[in-house]
Amino acid sequence: MGMIGGGKDAFIGAIHRIAANMDGLVELVCGSLSINKDIAIDSGRSLFLPEERIYTNYEEMLEKESQLPEGERMDFVTIVTPNFAHFAPAMMALDKGFHVVVEKPITLTLEEALQLKEKLAETGRLLCLTHTYTGYPMVKQAREMIKNGSLGKIKKVFVEYRQGWLSKLLEREGNQGAAWRTDPKKGGKSAVMGDIGTHAFNLAEYISGLQVTQVCADLNTMVEGRQLDDDGSVLLQFNNGARGVLAATQVAAGEENNLTIKVYGENGGLEWHQQEPNTLLLKWLDKPTEVYRAGTGFLTDIAKHNSRTPGGHPEGYLEAFGNIYRNFILTLSAKLNNTSVDGSVIEFPSITEGIRGMAFIDSVVNSNQSSEKWTPYVLANVQ
Amino acid sequence: MGMIGGGKDAFIGAIHRIAANMDGLVELVCGSLSINKDIAIDSGRSLFLPEERIYTNYEEMLEKESQLPEGERMDFVTIVTPNFAHFAPAMMALDKGFHVVVEKPITLTLEEALQLKEKLAETGRLLCLTHTYTGYPMVKQAREMIKNGSLGKIKKVFVEYRQGWLSKLLEREGNQGAAWRTDPKKGGKSAVMGDIGTHAFNLAEYISGLQVTQVCADLNTMVEGRQLDDDGSVLLQFNNGARGVLAATQVAAGEENNLTIKVYGENGGLEWHQQEPNTLLLKWLDKPTEVYRAGTGFLTDIAKHNSRTPGGHPEGYLEAFGNIYRNFILTLSAKLNNTSVDGSVIEFPSITEGIRGMAFIDSVVNSNQSSEKWTPYVLANVQ
Amino acid sequence: MGMIGGGKDAFIGAIHRIAANMDGLVELVCGSLSINKDIAIDSGRSLFLPEERIYTNYEEMLEKESQLPEGERMDFVTIVTPNFAHFAPAMMALDKGFHVVVEKPITLTLEEALQLKEKLAETGRLLCLTHTYTGYPMVKQAREMIKNGSLGKIKKVFVEYRQGWLSKLLEREGNQGAAWRTDPKKGGKSAVMGDIGTHAFNLAEYISGLQVTQVCADLNTMVEGRQLDDDGSVLLQFNNGARGVLAATQVAAGEENNLTIKVYGENGGLEWHQQEPNTLLLKWLDKPTEVYRAGTGFLTDIAKHNSRTPGGHPEGYLEAFGNIYRNFILTLSAKLNNTSVDGSVIEFPSITEGIRGMAFIDSVVNSNQSSEKWTPYVLANVQ
Amino acid sequence: MGMIGGGKDAFIGAIHRIAANMDGLVELVCGSLSINKDIAIDSGRSLFLPEERIYTNYEEMLEKESQLPEGERMDFVTIVTPNFAHFAPAMMALDKGFHVVVEKPITLTLEEALQLKEKLAETGRLLCLTHTYTGYPMVKQAREMIKNGSLGKIKKVFVEYRQGWLSKLLEREGNQGAAWRTDPKKGGKSAVMGDIGTHAFNLAEYISGLQVTQVCADLNTMVEGRQLDDDGSVLLQFNNGARGVLAATQVAAGEENNLTIKVYGENGGLEWHQQEPNTLLLKWLDKPTEVYRAGTGFLTDIAKHNSRTPGGHPEGYLEAFGNIYRNFILTLSAKLNNTSVDGSVIEFPSITEGIRGMAFIDSVVNSNQSSEKWTPYVLANVQ
Repeated sequence: MGMIGGGKDAFIGAIHRIAANMDGLVELVCGSLSINKDIAIDSGRSLFLPEERIYTNYEEMLEKESQLPEGERMDFVTIVTPNFAHFAPAMMALDKGFHVVVEKPITLTLEEALQLKEKLAETGRLLCLTHTYTGYPMVKQAREMIKNGSLGKIKKVFVEYRQGWLSKLLEREGNQGAAWRTDPKKGGKSAVMGDIGTHAFNLAEYISGLQVTQVCADLNTMVEGRQLDDDGSVLLQFNNGARGVLAATQVAAGEENNLTIKVYGENGGLEWHQQEPNTLLLKWLDKPTEVYRAGTGFLTDIAKHNSRTPGGHPEGYLEAFGNIYRNFILTLSAKLNNTSVDGSVIEFPSITEGIRGMAFIDSVVNSNQSSEKWTPYVLANVQ
Repeated sequence: MGMIGGGKDAFIGAIHRIAANMDGLVELVCGSLSINKDIAIDSGRSLFLPEERIYTNYEEMLEKESQLPEGERMDFVTIVTPNFAHFAPAMMALDKGFHVVVEKPITLTLEEALQLKEKLAETGRLLCLTHTYTGYPMVKQAREMIKNGSLGKIKKVFVEYRQGWLSKLLEREGNQGAAWRTDPKKGGKSAVMGDIGTHAFNLAEYISGLQVTQVCADLNTMVEGRQLDDDGSVLLQFNNGARGVLAATQVAAGEENNLTIKVYGENGGLEWHQQEPNTLLLKWLDKPTEVYRAGTGFLTDIAKHNSRTPGGHPEGYLEAFGNIYRNFILTLSAKLNNTSVDGSVIEFPSITEGIRGMAFIDSVVNSNQSSEKWTPYVLANVQ
Repeated sequence: MGMIGGGKDAFIGAIHRIAANMDGLVELVCGSLSINKDIAIDSGRSLFLPEERIYTNYEEMLEKESQLPEGERMDFVTIVTPNFAHFAPAMMALDKGFHVVVEKPITLTLEEALQLKEKLAETGRLLCLTHTYTGYPMVKQAREMIKNGSLGKIKKVFVEYRQGWLSKLLEREGNQGAAWRTDPKKGGKSAVMGDIGTHAFNLAEYISGLQVTQVCADLNTMVEGRQLDDDGSVLLQFNNGARGVLAATQVAAGEENNLTIKVYGENGGLEWHQQEPNTLLLKWLDKPTEVYRAGTGFLTDIAKHNSRTPGGHPEGYLEAFGNIYRNFILTLSAKLNNTSVDGSVIEFPSITEGIRGMAFIDSVVNSNQSSEKWTPYVLANVQ
Repeated sequence: MGMIGGGKDAFIGAIHRIAANMDGLVELVCGSLSINKDIAIDSGRSLFLPEERIYTNYEEMLEKESQLPEGERMDFVTIVTPNFAHFAPAMMALDKGFHVVVEKPITLTLEEALQLKEKLAETGRLLCLTHTYTGYPMVKQAREMIKNGSLGKIKKVFVEYRQGWLSKLLEREGNQGAAWRTDPKKGGKSAVMGDIGTHAFNLAEYISGLQVTQVCADLNTMVEGRQLDDDGSVLLQFNNGARGVLAATQVAAGEENNLTIKVYGENGGLEWHQQEPNTLLLKWLDKPTEVYRAGTGFLTDIAKHNSRTPGGHPEGYLEAFGNIYRNFILTLSAKLNNTSVDGSVIEFPSITEGIRGMAFIDSVVNSNQSSEKWTPYVLANVQ
């Protein structure tokens, strides 16, 4: 595993390294960890990378690694740069024969995502998109229970992602993460949708098994002086006639990372809160609410397969992230060994989710600019 | 106190009687408790009403009571009939000199509500609208903290009212409450907004101190065969630029009476859940979340004034309802005695809230029928 | 209904009046509301009692009321004085032919409680002891589920009652309630056990259906200068071999009225928190935890019978208190009318619970004074 | 790092490997992973250990590793065998110059623990005892807030550890973990205290900063046919006069791993639940309860230092475990490099905690066998 971005000054790089490393299945062997040469070198050293594999730009890394003998060169590269710098290294990595892990949103634009899809088809490589929240065992349990019909036909989906950290104009106070996210050239058309709205959208489609077909969006910039939106609410229509509400805001002062989903069907509903991720509430029309808990024996295979500890030993964000990596790595290993994995329990988000996320951002921005109530989800025919 | 509607077979009548009675300030002295004569009589007897004051229609009751000597006749009448039967008795009661308590929504149509306002001005009588949820002490605490600026400028309001009891076509299974609520002639233009949406709207405006100016609504009938909607989601704009989301649904299978509000301002946010009403969470940008609890010493005067038990002795729905009555009765007593009450702690919803609620229903229905994204709140100039 | 104690300056009197009054089944007709004559008169007037039935001492009240014609005199008297002043008025009331409602602990000493039992047998009157917490519907649900064997044989009971209000020496700061509770002549042998420990004990026996046979107690006075204990922990043995822990403390600074019980049997456990009383958790060995909720359709008859509102409309402390009164009044009415009530759903604590509570206090005090680990529950043969 | 025990069939070995590995600071280089030779080899291979460093007994491993050149041989060994098999390999490892990580309880007997202490002093090596729960950031926050006097003088400590997994006689159904834990030769004098009671005891002393001086214990075997206890309750006295209750049970059917602590001082109390470990409640006498949350900016340095993700990205059991390892490894690295770490934020349980835990087990067993109420904590003079 190699890494592009994620140097000492970057939060998400460390998270990826812990997650990838968690199950002892891979090792970081090289990195181009910053566009700042000094930071790139310092970061590589502090991670005990061999000097010759501490690179200072990704082109060099991809080039040189591709010249190493098989077995020695990295198997895949993880791209954890800001949004605008996902596409180029991903394309080059694929061209050089590497598999790719990439942060969400997959690219800066939908067009890039579509090109990436073609490149994947052309090269036959794997791509893993780190929509972390679908890595939680109770999210997988939720999806599975809806899939197996426990809730009956789905009627309503509520998904809320509330953060408060952008309540002030941090991008003017030297906060790098705030700066690139709220810069349209680096973050994309919508800051709030690119950063957290796509997570909420992905979670809603993943759990419900449905696809959004129409959106009605209201995007707002609540903090004066900000270049991009920091708040958005979207009414949703799904392909089975269900309706939904998606709210994503980064100006909910006092909130940490409050991602919550509730899905209701004919027979009952389910509720999951990312901040207490080991509990899934199942509310029933005809019997008492049930509390499903991670690690217990009462879960579906996919939930069991995606956890490491018994009930009452809480797993968290890093383990969910680790599940994304583990499932990707197991799938990759199988591919490399010409074997296969059980896709019903070992799965990870990839190009389809990436494209759907970019199309969601575009749809929301289109809707926000329109005076029409409903705007079609773009590329409604993309699977 | 007299009562119109609320016979033995009606849930809400009993609730009103307990609430009105809770503080020993009034006594039920007469009633026209059902349009079914036998039920009216049976109900009156089971409530120990004197035979001569058990009436079988409201016109007779209002007529006869008005002829009784002052001090003997009822002071006010509570109207707990289905929506379509609020207006006529309320108008007649005012004409006959009685003060009025009426269930929400105040009338069947906005026009009726506006007429009622004129009648109130003409007769100088009081009207109390039982928006129960604003009777909770922690709701009043929330309002007061926003009013005094603790949260700073309000940016975002989320209010959700989720019930599941209409998940099946109960109106075809003999459920009277379901039947009139989903009958446009009896329930009004929108079932879900008339029944619970107005509560959510009222709560949002009450707590935030803001007024809705634009709505973008999506109403749905999720249960086949139903005459009116049972689900709705509304994007909101407020008069200070804040945005909001209001969701009201009666097909959230497995939910009981899950009314929840979250309001975010510059400095922090607050969160209240009706099903655990004695707790108010205050989330802050610059310090840990605080848990305000009913009955404790750390509350504002209005919250203290609207509770009966010390901290940890939970009050509930009936006490909130009792607060609405108590505040109305104290205000009425003061009026009758030419004294006054401290309106900063003794207050209750009245005609303004009633009109705003009806205008909200109209606005939502207008918006639902429109292909425009935003529809102005009707009567935006009504206070 | 008449009342002894509970004047304007007393918290619990108002609670009793709301509770008794809640269902409109009785009316307060007379009172001897304070030993302070002025307060007694003022209090009576503020409650709209007729002047001639505002008494200034209980002997006079009981005497004069007993001379009124049947149908006019009060049916029963509620005694809400400090502990030391329960016995004498209760005895006299019974002698004068009145039924009695009395606050817990039933008397100052076990001996008094035993005399009261004889007097009850002699007079054939009813006595209701207001162990409020057993009035909650979910407490009754818990009891019933254990009774019907759902949990299997009970093995362990944890009951905790944590308050913080005596964390400071309030009795020296003019707090009357603190003063008499911590005065051995007025409160009894143990302040913490008399005031809240008996509630915890009663709740544990009520829900588990078991009886304590041995105790091992540690009582402490945590606030310097206090005359009586303010904290205690007790290990318990039950008559079926189950073990338990009872903790009662009034110096848990920051706690309100945190009474919690957990009971475990062979098949599962249950958990109830008084501060969120409408939820009962059922934890199972072989399936997911269930959340039973007051007012829903999934409950036993006794739970349904002891609530007033549908699911999601929270009931609280006053309603639980109201249930005690309602069940007492319904039983009394039946007795007066020579009919009967369904004792499986209409029941209330009485002399047996009163005696067991006093015996518990004695047992704990005995144990605390002993260096032996286990001390027998006194009067182990009393039912 | 090498490992003794923890082969493929052992739960806790995998946990240790993830935890040790989490921060990329160490690598597993050798192991004697099972007493079953085949399992030892299979396990080593599945962990990609070099063939020559897959050992089949610990003596061989310690011997051979000690002969490898410095820098090549393992730095420390982790012992994750059943309780009875901690002492011998730990002693030998120290003798051979290795540092040691060992599962709790540290040894089978107190005597062994005391010998280990001498050996540590003699060899100058480090020992880390994996009392995982003190690795949680909010536990460290709790300890720090008590240490800095926020709560004032501590008066009361409640610690409960409730599990349900031993509700049936699993040791007869082939459950290896149940079998050795309930076998006095392998688990020690008390199963419930050795397995979970020591955790609760350690947590109570760690957070409160106090030391137990007297115990009053009741141990029970609730499941027929079991050789050792599965339930215990202990009253505690602390060295500052505070009192406590410790309950540890493995027959609380339906519970997962419910470790909860509440500590009360003069000014307020705190409450922490292991199953939702990122929240610490601070309840105050003179202001509203505060909710401290892991990863937020409002914490003490030690809490910040012992977490990896920002607020709202939940960390769990593995991260707590990882903190124990990280702090040990950082301390060890510093020692090896003759530098030092900031002990105020980098600390881990060691021999003192190990001895105190063993002395606690002995004290509880002594007390259980005694008819005296209070039994002194043995080795009260050991620090």
